[in-house]
Amino acid sequence: MALRTHYIIGRKPVLEAIKSGAEIERIYIVRGNKGGIIIDIFREAKKRNIKVNEVPQQKIQQYSKSENSQGVVALKSSFNYSGLEEILVPVKKKKDSNPDYKPLLLILEQIQDTHNTGAILRTAEAAGVDGIIITKHNSAPINATVEKTSAGAVSHLKIHQANNLVNTLKVLKDEGFWIFGSTLGGSKPMYELDFNLPAAVIVGNEEKGIRKLTADNCDFLINIPMTGKIQSLNVSVAAGVLLYEVIRQRRG
Amino acid sequence: MALRTHYIIGRKPVLEAIKSGAEIERIYIVRGNKGGIIIDIFREAKKRNIKVNEVPQQKIQQYSKSENSQGVVALKSSFNYSGLEEILVPVKKKKDSNPDYKPLLLILEQIQDTHNTGAILRTAEAAGVDGIIITKHNSAPINATVEKTSAGAVSHLKIHQANNLVNTLKVLKDEGFWIFGSTLGGSKPMYELDFNLPAAVIVGNEEKGIRKLTADNCDFLINIPMTGKIQSLNVSVAAGVLLYEVIRQRRG
Repeated sequence: MALRTHYIIGRKPVLEAIKSGAEIERIYIVRGNKGGIIIDIFREAKKRNIKVNEVPQQKIQQYSKSENSQGVVALKSSFNYSGLEEILVPVKKKKDSNPDYKPLLLILEQIQDTHNTGAILRTAEAAGVDGIIITKHNSAPINATVEKTSAGAVSHLKIHQANNLVNTLKVLKDEGFWIFGSTLGGSKPMYELDFNLPAAVIVGNEEKGIRKLTADNCDFLINIPMTGKIQSLNVSVAAGVLLYEVIRQRRG
Repeated sequence: MALRTHYIIGRKPVLEAIKSGAEIERIYIVRGNKGGIIIDIFREAKKRNIKVNEVPQQKIQQYSKSENSQGVVALKSSFNYSGLEEILVPVKKKKDSNPDYKPLLLILEQIQDTHNTGAILRTAEAAGVDGIIITKHNSAPINATVEKTSAGAVSHLKIHQANNLVNTLKVLKDEGFWIFGSTLGGSKPMYELDFNLPAAVIVGNEEKGIRKLTADNCDFLINIPMTGKIQSLNVSVAAGVLLYEVIRQRRG
Protein backbone atom coordinates (compact mmCIF):
# COMPACT_ATOMS: atom_id res chain seq x y z
CA MET A 1 0.00 0.00 0.00
CA ALA A 2 1.48 3.30 -1.06
CA LEU A 3 -0.56 5.32 1.44
CA ARG A 4 0.38 5.05 5.11
CA THR A 5 -1.14 6.54 8.22
CA HIS A 6 1.02 7.86 11.04
CA TYR A 7 -0.05 9.17 14.40
CA ILE A 8 1.07 12.41 15.97
CA ILE A 9 0.65 12.25 19.70
CA GLY A 10 0.36 15.02 22.28
CA ARG A 11 -0.88 18.61 22.36
CA LYS A 12 2.17 20.54 21.19
CA PRO A 13 3.26 18.06 18.48
CA VAL A 14 -0.27 18.09 17.04
CA LEU A 15 -0.55 21.89 17.15
CA GLU A 16 2.84 22.28 15.46
CA ALA A 17 1.97 19.69 12.82
CA ILE A 18 -1.24 21.57 11.95
CA LYS A 19 0.60 24.89 11.73
CA SER A 20 3.36 23.40 9.56
CA GLY A 21 0.77 22.50 6.91
CA ALA A 22 1.14 18.73 7.40
CA GLU A 23 -1.49 16.65 5.59
CA ILE A 24 -3.62 15.71 8.56
CA GLU A 25 -6.71 13.61 7.94
CA ARG A 26 -8.36 14.00 11.33
CA ILE A 27 -7.73 14.98 14.93
CA TYR A 28 -9.07 13.15 17.97
CA ILE A 29 -9.44 15.01 21.27
CA VAL A 30 -10.70 13.48 24.50
CA ARG A 31 -14.17 14.80 25.24
CA GLY A 32 -14.08 17.65 27.76
CA ASN A 33 -10.35 18.28 27.29
CA LYS A 34 -9.67 21.94 28.09
CA GLY A 35 -6.92 24.54 28.03
CA GLY A 36 -5.28 27.14 25.81
CA ILE A 37 -3.51 24.69 23.50
CA ILE A 38 -6.73 22.73 22.94
CA ILE A 39 -8.48 25.94 21.86
CA ASP A 40 -5.54 26.72 19.55
CA ILE A 41 -5.81 23.23 18.04
CA PHE A 42 -9.53 23.73 17.35
CA ARG A 43 -8.89 27.16 15.85
CA GLU A 44 -5.96 26.16 13.61
CA ALA A 45 -7.70 22.95 12.50
CA LYS A 46 -10.82 24.92 11.52
CA LYS A 47 -8.73 27.36 9.44
CA ARG A 48 -7.36 24.44 7.43
CA ASN A 49 -10.59 22.46 7.18
CA ILE A 50 -9.25 19.56 9.26
CA LYS A 51 -11.92 17.55 11.05
CA VAL A 52 -11.75 17.37 14.85
CA ASN A 53 -13.65 14.62 16.65
CA GLU A 54 -14.24 14.60 20.40
CA VAL A 55 -14.02 11.01 21.55
CA PRO A 56 -13.78 8.92 24.74
CA GLN A 57 -10.36 8.36 26.33
CA GLN A 58 -10.27 4.70 25.19
CA LYS A 59 -10.35 5.71 21.52
CA ILE A 60 -7.27 7.89 22.00
CA GLN A 61 -5.44 5.05 23.75
CA GLN A 62 -5.94 2.81 20.71
CA TYR A 63 -3.66 5.16 18.80
CA SER A 64 -1.29 6.48 21.44
CA LYS A 65 -0.64 3.03 22.99
CA SER A 66 1.65 3.55 25.98
CA GLU A 67 2.61 7.14 25.13
CA ASN A 68 1.08 9.98 27.09
CA SER A 69 -1.24 11.58 24.55
CA GLN A 70 -2.43 14.45 26.76
CA GLY A 71 -5.78 13.58 25.20
CA VAL A 72 -4.79 14.57 21.65
CA VAL A 73 -3.91 12.47 18.59
CA ALA A 74 -3.70 13.46 14.92
CA LEU A 75 -3.86 11.03 11.99
CA LYS A 76 -1.46 11.97 9.27
CA SER A 77 -1.40 10.31 5.86
CA SER A 78 1.85 10.10 4.04
CA PHE A 79 2.18 8.94 0.50
CA ASN A 80 5.33 7.32 -0.69
CA TYR A 81 6.16 9.37 -3.78
CA SER A 82 8.51 7.92 -6.38
CA GLY A 83 11.73 9.53 -7.51
CA LEU A 84 11.64 10.59 -11.17
CA GLU A 85 14.20 7.90 -11.95
CA GLU A 86 11.84 5.25 -10.57
CA ILE A 87 9.56 6.19 -13.49
CA LEU A 88 12.30 6.71 -16.11
CA VAL A 89 14.44 3.62 -15.48
CA PRO A 90 11.62 1.09 -16.18
CA VAL A 91 10.69 3.14 -19.29
CA LYS A 92 14.29 2.77 -20.54
CA LYS A 93 14.19 -0.96 -19.90
CA LYS A 94 10.97 -1.29 -21.91
CA LYS A 95 12.56 0.70 -24.75
CA ASP A 96 15.66 -1.51 -24.64
CA SER A 97 13.60 -4.64 -25.10
CA ASN A 98 11.22 -3.02 -27.61
CA PRO A 99 12.66 -0.06 -29.56
CA ASP A 100 9.11 0.81 -30.73
CA TYR A 101 7.84 1.25 -27.17
CA LYS A 102 6.18 4.65 -26.75
CA PRO A 103 6.00 5.64 -23.08
CA LEU A 104 3.17 7.85 -21.82
CA LEU A 105 3.30 10.09 -18.75
CA LEU A 106 0.53 12.20 -17.27
CA ILE A 107 1.37 15.46 -15.49
CA LEU A 108 -1.08 17.14 -13.09
CA GLU A 109 -0.33 20.82 -12.53
CA GLN A 110 -2.03 22.21 -9.43
CA ILE A 111 -5.10 19.96 -9.52
CA GLN A 112 -6.69 20.92 -6.23
CA ASP A 113 -9.75 18.74 -5.81
CA THR A 114 -9.09 15.32 -4.28
CA HIS A 115 -12.04 13.77 -6.17
CA ASN A 116 -10.63 15.02 -9.46
CA THR A 117 -7.16 13.74 -8.60
CA GLY A 118 -8.59 10.34 -7.64
CA ALA A 119 -10.69 10.01 -10.80
CA ILE A 120 -7.70 11.03 -12.94
CA LEU A 121 -5.41 8.45 -11.29
CA ARG A 122 -8.08 5.77 -11.84
CA THR A 123 -8.25 6.62 -15.55
CA ALA A 124 -4.47 6.88 -15.90
CA GLU A 125 -3.96 3.42 -14.43
CA ALA A 126 -6.69 1.92 -16.61
CA ALA A 127 -5.14 3.57 -19.66
CA GLY A 128 -1.75 2.09 -18.80
CA VAL A 129 0.40 5.19 -18.26
CA ASP A 130 4.04 4.68 -17.25
CA GLY A 131 3.91 7.25 -14.49
CA ILE A 132 2.32 10.35 -12.99
CA ILE A 133 3.96 13.64 -12.12
CA ILE A 134 2.18 15.98 -9.69
CA THR A 135 3.35 19.51 -8.89
CA LYS A 136 4.35 19.89 -5.26
CA HIS A 137 2.72 23.30 -4.78
CA ASN A 138 -1.04 23.86 -4.78
CA SER A 139 -1.90 20.26 -5.56
CA ALA A 140 -4.35 18.05 -3.68
CA PRO A 141 -2.46 15.71 -1.32
CA ILE A 142 -2.58 11.97 -2.05
CA ASN A 143 -4.81 11.13 0.90
CA ALA A 144 -7.54 8.64 1.82
CA THR A 145 -10.13 10.44 -0.36
CA VAL A 146 -7.85 10.30 -3.40
CA GLU A 147 -7.10 6.65 -2.72
CA LYS A 148 -10.81 5.81 -2.50
CA THR A 149 -11.83 7.88 -5.53
CA SER A 150 -9.00 6.31 -7.52
CA ALA A 151 -10.62 2.88 -6.93
CA GLY A 152 -7.25 1.74 -5.58
CA ALA A 153 -5.21 2.93 -8.58
CA VAL A 154 -2.93 4.87 -6.18
CA SER A 155 -1.36 1.57 -5.15
CA HIS A 156 -0.53 0.55 -8.71
CA LEU A 157 0.93 3.80 -10.00
CA LYS A 158 4.30 5.46 -9.70
CA ILE A 159 3.66 9.07 -8.70
CA HIS A 160 6.45 11.63 -8.64
CA GLN A 161 6.11 14.97 -6.88
CA ALA A 162 7.82 17.77 -8.85
CA ASN A 163 9.28 20.72 -6.97
CA ASN A 164 9.88 22.69 -10.10
CA LEU A 165 7.86 21.52 -13.08
CA VAL A 166 9.87 23.44 -15.69
CA ASN A 167 13.05 21.66 -14.57
CA THR A 168 11.24 18.32 -14.68
CA LEU A 169 10.03 19.05 -18.22
CA LYS A 170 13.66 19.71 -19.24
CA VAL A 171 14.72 16.33 -17.86
CA LEU A 172 11.85 14.64 -19.71
CA LYS A 173 12.80 16.34 -22.98
CA ASP A 174 16.40 15.18 -22.54
CA GLU A 175 15.00 11.69 -22.11
CA GLY A 176 13.24 11.96 -25.48
CA PHE A 177 9.73 12.86 -24.31
CA TRP A 178 7.53 15.33 -26.19
CA ILE A 179 5.47 17.58 -23.95
CA PHE A 180 1.78 18.13 -24.76
CA GLY A 181 0.01 20.85 -22.76
CA SER A 182 -3.79 20.97 -22.81
CA THR A 183 -5.32 24.43 -23.00
CA LEU A 184 -8.73 25.86 -23.86
CA GLY A 185 -7.91 28.08 -26.81
CA GLY A 186 -5.08 29.11 -29.12
CA SER A 187 -4.01 25.53 -29.66
CA LYS A 188 -4.69 22.61 -32.00
CA PRO A 189 -7.55 20.09 -31.63
CA MET A 190 -6.03 16.94 -30.16
CA TYR A 191 -7.12 14.95 -33.23
CA GLU A 192 -4.67 16.89 -35.41
CA LEU A 193 -1.56 15.88 -33.46
CA ASP A 194 0.52 12.75 -33.62
CA PHE A 195 0.85 11.06 -30.23
CA ASN A 196 2.83 8.19 -31.67
CA LEU A 197 5.98 9.22 -29.84
CA PRO A 198 7.20 9.27 -26.22
CA ALA A 199 4.63 11.64 -24.74
CA ALA A 200 3.96 13.53 -21.51
CA VAL A 201 0.49 15.11 -21.35
CA ILE A 202 -0.15 17.99 -18.93
CA VAL A 203 -3.56 18.90 -17.50
CA GLY A 204 -3.86 22.03 -15.38
CA ASN A 205 -5.68 23.59 -12.48
CA GLU A 206 -9.50 23.40 -12.39
CA GLU A 207 -9.96 27.17 -12.67
CA LYS A 208 -6.81 28.49 -14.30
CA GLY A 209 -5.60 25.66 -16.52
CA ILE A 210 -1.86 25.24 -17.00
CA ARG A 211 0.43 28.16 -16.09
CA LYS A 212 1.85 30.37 -18.80
CA LEU A 213 5.44 29.41 -17.94
CA THR A 214 4.47 25.75 -18.22
CA ALA A 215 2.72 26.32 -21.56
CA ASP A 216 5.85 28.10 -22.83
CA ASN A 217 7.83 24.96 -22.07
CA CYS A 218 5.52 22.59 -23.95
CA ASP A 219 6.35 21.24 -27.40
CA PHE A 220 2.66 21.24 -28.39
CA LEU A 221 -0.46 22.91 -27.08
CA ILE A 222 -3.64 20.94 -27.64
CA ASN A 223 -7.35 21.32 -26.95
CA ILE A 224 -10.50 19.24 -26.83
CA PRO A 225 -13.03 20.69 -29.31
CA MET A 226 -16.09 22.27 -27.68
CA THR A 227 -19.22 22.79 -29.72
CA GLY A 228 -21.77 23.87 -27.11
CA LYS A 229 -22.16 26.86 -24.82
CA ILE A 230 -20.07 25.35 -22.03
CA GLN A 231 -16.43 26.28 -22.53
CA SER A 232 -14.58 23.57 -20.62
CA LEU A 233 -14.88 20.04 -19.27
CA ASN A 234 -14.37 18.85 -15.75
CA VAL A 235 -10.60 18.22 -15.53
CA SER A 236 -10.95 14.50 -14.78
CA VAL A 237 -13.16 14.09 -17.87
CA ALA A 238 -10.68 16.13 -19.94
CA ALA A 239 -7.78 13.96 -18.77
CA GLY A 240 -9.73 10.83 -19.75
CA VAL A 241 -10.61 12.16 -23.20
CA LEU A 242 -6.97 13.17 -23.84
CA LEU A 243 -5.44 9.90 -22.61
CA TYR A 244 -7.84 7.83 -24.70
CA GLU A 245 -7.05 9.84 -27.83
CA VAL A 246 -3.40 8.90 -27.27
CA ILE A 247 -4.38 5.24 -26.75
CA ARG A 248 -6.52 5.24 -29.90
CA GLN A 249 -3.76 6.65 -32.09
CA ARG A 250 -1.26 4.15 -30.77
CA ARG A 251 -3.53 1.20 -31.54
CA GLY A 252 -2.81 2.11 -35.15
CA MET B 1 -33.45 28.56 -15.88
CA ALA B 2 -34.60 24.99 -16.12
CA LEU B 3 -34.37 24.39 -12.36
CA ARG B 4 -36.98 26.04 -10.12
CA THR B 5 -37.41 26.09 -6.38
CA HIS B 6 -40.84 25.83 -4.81
CA TYR B 7 -41.76 26.06 -1.15
CA ILE B 8 -43.93 23.61 0.72
CA ILE B 9 -45.42 25.27 3.76
CA GLY B 10 -46.83 23.77 6.95
CA ARG B 11 -46.26 20.63 9.02
CA LYS B 12 -48.56 18.12 7.29
CA PRO B 13 -47.80 19.23 3.71
CA VAL B 14 -44.06 18.96 4.41
CA LEU B 15 -44.37 15.54 6.06
CA GLU B 16 -46.49 14.23 3.19
CA ALA B 17 -44.07 15.64 0.61
CA ILE B 18 -41.14 13.86 2.28
CA LYS B 19 -43.03 10.56 2.44
CA SER B 20 -44.12 10.81 -1.21
CA GLY B 21 -40.46 10.87 -2.27
CA ALA B 22 -40.52 14.46 -3.51
CA GLU B 23 -37.08 15.88 -4.35
CA ILE B 24 -36.65 18.11 -1.33
CA GLU B 25 -33.42 20.07 -1.07
CA ARG B 26 -33.75 21.19 2.54
CA ILE B 27 -36.22 21.65 5.38
CA TYR B 28 -36.35 24.65 7.72
CA ILE B 29 -37.93 24.28 11.15
CA VAL B 30 -38.27 27.08 13.71
CA ARG B 31 -35.84 26.45 16.56
CA GLY B 32 -37.55 24.81 19.52
CA ASN B 33 -40.58 23.72 17.51
CA LYS B 34 -42.04 20.61 19.20
CA GLY B 35 -44.70 17.96 18.72
CA GLY B 36 -45.33 14.55 17.16
CA ILE B 37 -45.36 15.73 13.56
CA ILE B 38 -42.08 17.60 14.00
CA ILE B 39 -40.46 14.40 15.29
CA ASP B 40 -41.92 12.52 12.29
CA ILE B 41 -40.48 15.14 9.94
CA PHE B 42 -37.01 14.75 11.48
CA ARG B 43 -37.27 10.96 11.31
CA GLU B 44 -38.53 10.73 7.73
CA ALA B 45 -36.06 13.40 6.53
CA LYS B 46 -33.17 11.50 8.10
CA LYS B 47 -34.23 8.27 6.35
CA ARG B 48 -34.00 10.03 2.99
CA ASN B 49 -30.86 12.04 3.72
CA ILE B 50 -32.67 15.38 3.52
CA LYS B 51 -31.02 18.16 5.51
CA VAL B 52 -33.05 19.79 8.28
CA ASN B 53 -31.98 23.21 9.59
CA GLU B 54 -33.34 24.74 12.77
CA VAL B 55 -33.63 28.48 12.19
CA PRO B 56 -35.15 31.61 13.74
CA GLN B 57 -38.82 32.44 13.00
CA GLN B 58 -37.83 35.33 10.68
CA LYS B 59 -36.06 32.98 8.28
CA ILE B 60 -39.22 30.88 7.90
CA GLN B 61 -41.29 34.01 7.25
CA GLN B 62 -39.06 34.90 4.30
CA TYR B 63 -40.36 31.79 2.56
CA SER B 64 -43.88 31.41 3.91
CA LYS B 65 -44.77 35.11 3.44
CA SER B 66 -48.31 35.62 4.78
CA GLU B 67 -49.16 31.90 5.02
CA ASN B 68 -49.19 30.23 8.41
CA SER B 69 -46.15 27.98 8.23
CA GLN B 70 -46.60 26.29 11.64
CA GLY B 71 -42.84 26.79 11.80
CA VAL B 72 -42.02 24.41 8.92
CA VAL B 73 -41.00 25.06 5.32
CA ALA B 74 -39.47 22.70 2.75
CA LEU B 75 -37.54 23.77 -0.35
CA LYS B 76 -38.36 21.61 -3.32
CA SER B 77 -36.48 21.75 -6.58
CA SER B 78 -38.32 20.87 -9.69
CA PHE B 79 -36.70 20.42 -13.02
CA ASN B 80 -38.62 21.06 -16.16
CA TYR B 81 -38.04 17.81 -18.09
CA SER B 82 -38.62 17.80 -21.84
CA GLY B 83 -41.04 15.53 -23.64
CA LEU B 84 -39.26 13.09 -25.97
CA GLU B 85 -40.81 14.93 -28.95
CA GLU B 86 -39.11 18.14 -27.79
CA ILE B 87 -35.83 16.37 -28.51
CA LEU B 88 -36.95 14.51 -31.66
CA VAL B 89 -38.75 17.35 -33.50
CA PRO B 90 -35.69 19.67 -33.67
CA VAL B 91 -33.61 16.65 -34.76
CA LYS B 92 -36.04 16.08 -37.66
CA LYS B 93 -35.83 19.74 -38.65
CA LYS B 94 -32.03 19.57 -38.71
CA LYS B 95 -32.23 16.44 -40.87
CA ASP B 96 -34.70 18.15 -43.25
CA SER B 97 -32.33 21.03 -43.84
CA ASN B 98 -29.24 18.79 -43.93
CA PRO B 99 -29.84 15.15 -44.93
CA ASP B 100 -26.32 14.28 -43.73
CA TYR B 101 -27.04 15.47 -40.18
CA LYS B 102 -26.21 12.74 -37.65
CA PRO B 103 -27.97 13.35 -34.35
CA LEU B 104 -26.42 12.19 -31.08
CA LEU B 105 -28.29 11.39 -27.87
CA LEU B 106 -26.87 10.39 -24.51
CA ILE B 107 -28.84 8.07 -22.24
CA LEU B 108 -28.11 7.80 -18.50
CA GLU B 109 -29.45 4.63 -16.94
CA GLN B 110 -29.67 4.82 -13.16
CA ILE B 111 -26.72 7.15 -12.62
CA GLN B 112 -27.08 7.80 -8.92
CA ASP B 113 -24.42 10.30 -7.96
CA THR B 114 -25.35 13.94 -8.50
CA HIS B 115 -21.70 14.90 -9.11
CA ASN B 116 -21.42 12.27 -11.84
CA THR B 117 -24.70 13.38 -13.42
CA GLY B 118 -23.56 17.02 -13.35
CA ALA B 119 -20.16 16.28 -14.88
CA ILE B 120 -21.79 14.14 -17.58
CA LEU B 121 -24.27 16.89 -18.50
CA ARG B 122 -21.39 19.39 -18.69
CA THR B 123 -19.51 17.14 -21.12
CA ALA B 124 -22.63 16.33 -23.14
CA GLU B 125 -23.41 20.02 -23.68
CA ALA B 126 -19.80 20.80 -24.60
CA ALA B 127 -19.82 17.88 -27.05
CA GLY B 128 -23.00 19.20 -28.68
CA VAL B 129 -25.47 16.36 -28.06
CA ASP B 130 -29.06 16.82 -29.29
CA GLY B 131 -30.60 15.62 -26.07
CA ILE B 132 -30.32 13.61 -22.87
CA ILE B 133 -32.53 10.79 -21.66
CA ILE B 134 -32.46 9.87 -17.97
CA THR B 135 -34.27 6.88 -16.48
CA LYS B 136 -36.97 7.90 -14.04
CA HIS B 137 -36.19 5.20 -11.49
CA ASN B 138 -33.01 5.09 -9.39
CA SER B 139 -31.46 8.14 -11.04
CA ALA B 140 -30.05 11.18 -9.29
CA PRO B 141 -32.57 14.04 -9.36
CA ILE B 142 -31.67 17.13 -11.38
CA ASN B 143 -31.13 19.35 -8.35
CA ALA B 144 -28.97 22.29 -7.29
CA THR B 145 -25.85 20.07 -6.96
CA VAL B 146 -26.29 18.71 -10.47
CA GLU B 147 -26.85 22.20 -11.81
CA LYS B 148 -23.68 23.48 -10.15
CA THR B 149 -21.53 20.47 -11.13
CA SER B 150 -22.80 20.78 -14.70
CA ALA B 151 -21.30 24.31 -14.84
CA GLY B 152 -24.75 25.51 -15.92
CA ALA B 153 -25.17 22.99 -18.77
CA VAL B 154 -28.52 21.93 -17.25
CA SER B 155 -30.03 25.18 -18.57
CA HIS B 156 -28.85 24.56 -22.13
CA LEU B 157 -29.85 20.91 -22.52
CA LYS B 158 -33.11 19.15 -23.29
CA ILE B 159 -33.44 16.37 -20.76
CA HIS B 160 -36.17 13.75 -21.05
CA GLN B 161 -37.12 11.49 -18.17
CA ALA B 162 -37.93 7.97 -19.38
CA ASN B 163 -40.47 5.91 -17.46
CA ASN B 164 -39.66 2.77 -19.37
CA LEU B 165 -36.30 2.83 -21.12
CA VAL B 166 -36.97 -0.20 -23.34
CA ASN B 167 -40.08 1.51 -24.78
CA THR B 168 -38.08 4.71 -25.32
CA LEU B 169 -35.38 2.73 -27.15
CA LYS B 170 -38.07 1.31 -29.46
CA VAL B 171 -39.28 4.81 -30.30
CA LEU B 172 -35.70 5.92 -30.98
CA LYS B 173 -35.10 2.93 -33.28
CA ASP B 174 -38.28 3.75 -35.20
CA GLU B 175 -36.87 7.25 -35.62
CA GLY B 176 -33.73 5.83 -37.20
CA PHE B 177 -31.40 5.88 -34.20
CA TRP B 178 -28.86 3.13 -33.56
CA ILE B 179 -28.45 2.23 -29.90
CA PHE B 180 -24.91 1.82 -28.47
CA GLY B 181 -24.69 0.37 -24.96
CA SER B 182 -21.41 0.70 -23.07
CA THR B 183 -20.38 -2.34 -21.05
CA LEU B 184 -17.20 -3.62 -19.44
CA GLY B 185 -16.69 -6.92 -21.21
CA GLY B 186 -18.09 -9.11 -23.96
CA SER B 187 -18.35 -6.22 -26.37
CA LYS B 188 -16.27 -4.44 -29.02
CA PRO B 189 -13.72 -1.67 -28.34
CA MET B 190 -15.42 1.61 -29.25
CA TYR B 191 -12.72 2.28 -31.88
CA GLU B 192 -13.98 -0.65 -33.96
CA LEU B 193 -17.52 0.70 -34.42
CA ASP B 194 -18.87 3.24 -36.85
CA PHE B 195 -20.62 6.12 -35.09
CA ASN B 196 -21.30 7.92 -38.34
CA LEU B 197 -25.03 7.33 -38.07
CA PRO B 198 -27.87 8.63 -35.88
CA ALA B 199 -26.66 7.39 -32.50
CA ALA B 200 -27.88 7.07 -28.93
CA VAL B 201 -25.16 6.09 -26.44
CA ILE B 202 -26.12 4.54 -23.10
CA VAL B 203 -24.00 4.69 -19.95
CA GLY B 204 -25.15 2.76 -16.90
CA ASN B 205 -25.17 2.74 -13.13
CA GLU B 206 -21.90 3.38 -11.24
CA GLU B 207 -21.82 -0.10 -9.69
CA LYS B 208 -23.87 -2.32 -11.97
CA GLY B 209 -23.49 -0.79 -15.43
CA ILE B 210 -26.43 -1.06 -17.82
CA ARG B 211 -29.19 -3.56 -17.06
CA LYS B 212 -29.34 -6.85 -18.95
CA LEU B 213 -32.74 -6.02 -20.45
CA THR B 214 -31.35 -2.72 -21.68
CA ALA B 215 -28.26 -4.40 -23.14
CA ASP B 216 -30.53 -6.87 -24.93
CA ASN B 217 -32.26 -3.94 -26.63
CA CYS B 218 -29.04 -2.30 -27.89
CA ASP B 219 -27.90 -2.57 -31.50
CA PHE B 220 -24.24 -2.57 -30.45
CA LEU B 221 -22.39 -3.19 -27.20
CA ILE B 222 -19.15 -1.27 -26.86
CA ASN B 223 -16.34 -0.91 -24.36
CA ILE B 224 -13.45 1.37 -23.55
CA PRO B 225 -10.21 -0.66 -23.61
CA MET B 226 -8.55 -1.08 -20.21
CA THR B 227 -4.89 -2.02 -20.02
CA GLY B 228 -4.11 -1.65 -16.30
CA LYS B 229 -5.25 -3.40 -13.14
CA ILE B 230 -8.26 -1.11 -12.63
CA GLN B 231 -11.25 -2.59 -14.43
CA SER B 232 -13.47 0.44 -14.98
CA LEU B 233 -13.48 4.22 -15.25
CA ASN B 234 -15.54 6.68 -13.28
CA VAL B 235 -18.82 6.89 -15.22
CA SER B 236 -18.46 10.60 -15.98
CA VAL B 237 -14.99 9.98 -17.43
CA ALA B 238 -16.33 7.00 -19.42
CA ALA B 239 -19.18 9.12 -20.84
CA GLY B 240 -16.66 11.78 -21.91
CA VAL B 241 -14.35 9.27 -23.57
CA LEU B 242 -17.27 7.68 -25.46
CA LEU B 243 -18.83 10.98 -26.60
CA TYR B 244 -15.50 12.28 -27.86
CA GLU B 245 -14.86 9.09 -29.83
CA VAL B 246 -18.18 9.75 -31.59
CA ILE B 247 -17.19 13.40 -32.20
CA ARG B 248 -13.80 12.36 -33.56
CA GLN B 249 -15.24 9.86 -36.04
CA ARG B 250 -17.77 12.39 -37.27
CA ARG B 251 -15.10 15.03 -37.94
CA GLY B 252 -14.06 12.66 -40.72
